[in-house]
Amino acid sequence: MKKTNLGKLVKMLKFDEKGLVPAVVQDYKDGKVLMVAYMNEEAFLETVKTGKAHFYSRSRKKLWMKGEESGNIQIVKEILLDCDNDCVLIKVEQVGGASCHTGYRSCFFRKITKDGKLKLVERKIFDPEKVYSRK
Amino acid sequence: MKKTNLGKLVKMLKFDEKGLVPAVVQDYKDGKVLMVAYMNEEAFLETVKTGKAHFYSRSRKKLWMKGEESGNIQIVKEILLDCDNDCVLIKVEQVGGASCHTGYRSCFFRKITKDGKLKLVERKIFDPEKVYSRK
Repeated sequence: MKKTNLGKLVKMLKFDEKGLVPAVVQDYKDGKVLMVAYMNEEAFLETVKTGKAHFYSRSRKKLWMKGEESGNIQIVKEILLDCDNDCVLIKVEQVGGASCHTGYRSCFFRKITKDGKLKLVERKIFDPEKVYSRK
Repeated sequence: MKKTNLGKLVKMLKFDEKGLVPAVVQDYKDGKVLMVAYMNEEAFLETVKTGKAHFYSRSRKKLWMKGEESGNIQIVKEILLDCDNDCVLIKVEQVGGASCHTGYRSCFFRKITKDGKLKLVERKIFDPEKVYSRK
C-alpha cells in the first residue's frame, strides 16, 4: 500500500479526544459480530500493514495484537469505514474459532430476555484458564 | 418486562465517563452491520421498552429514535450484551431498507482497497435530499 494513500486515510479518520475509534470485528464468512475494541492511529496502521487485527487496550494503555497471547489472531479480510469516518468495521478470519477472552466465539454471548434477564446463547470453545497464563 | 430486572440490567451496564455505551446495529436476517451509534441510560431504556432503537446523539446532545424523521425506524429483534458490559449489539429489522442518513443501506458503504483508497461498495437506496427536510 502506498504510504501517501495510507497517510490520507489516517488523516481522514476522526479519532475521539482520547485518540481512539471503535472497531467492530465481524466474521467474514457468516457475519457474526465477534467483538468491539478500540484503535488508535498506531493500531489502525499496524492492522493495515500486517493484515492482523491490532487494537489499543484502554485498560492496559498499550497496543496489542488480538491473539498475541491466546494464539487466536484475526486475519483481516476487509476493512470498511463508516459515513462519519469515526468507526471501522473489520471482517476477519478468526483463528481458533473464538474471539472472546472468556472462551466464547463472540463477546456477545448473552442476550437480554423478554423479562429483562441475561441468557447465555453460546457454548465455550476454550477454557480461559488453560489458554491465558496467570500472571 | 419487570421493572426490577430492567433496573438490574441498567446498573450492570458500564457507561463511559460521558454516560454512553456504543451500540452496534445489525440486520437480524442476514447479519449486515448497519451502523454504530451511542446509547445513554435513557436511550437504552426506551429501546427496551418500545422495541424501537433509540440512541443519544452526541452532536445534537439529545435522545433520538432512529427513523424519527426519515421513517426508517429499526424494530428490535434481539439485544445482546458483551463480556465487559460496555457495549450492546442490537439485531433489528430495518424499515425502509436503509439505515444510513446518506441513503445507503449501511453506514459502512466504503471499503479500504489494497492500495489504501476508499471504494464504494453499496448503491444508494434513497435520496437524502428528498427524505430529510432542509432546516
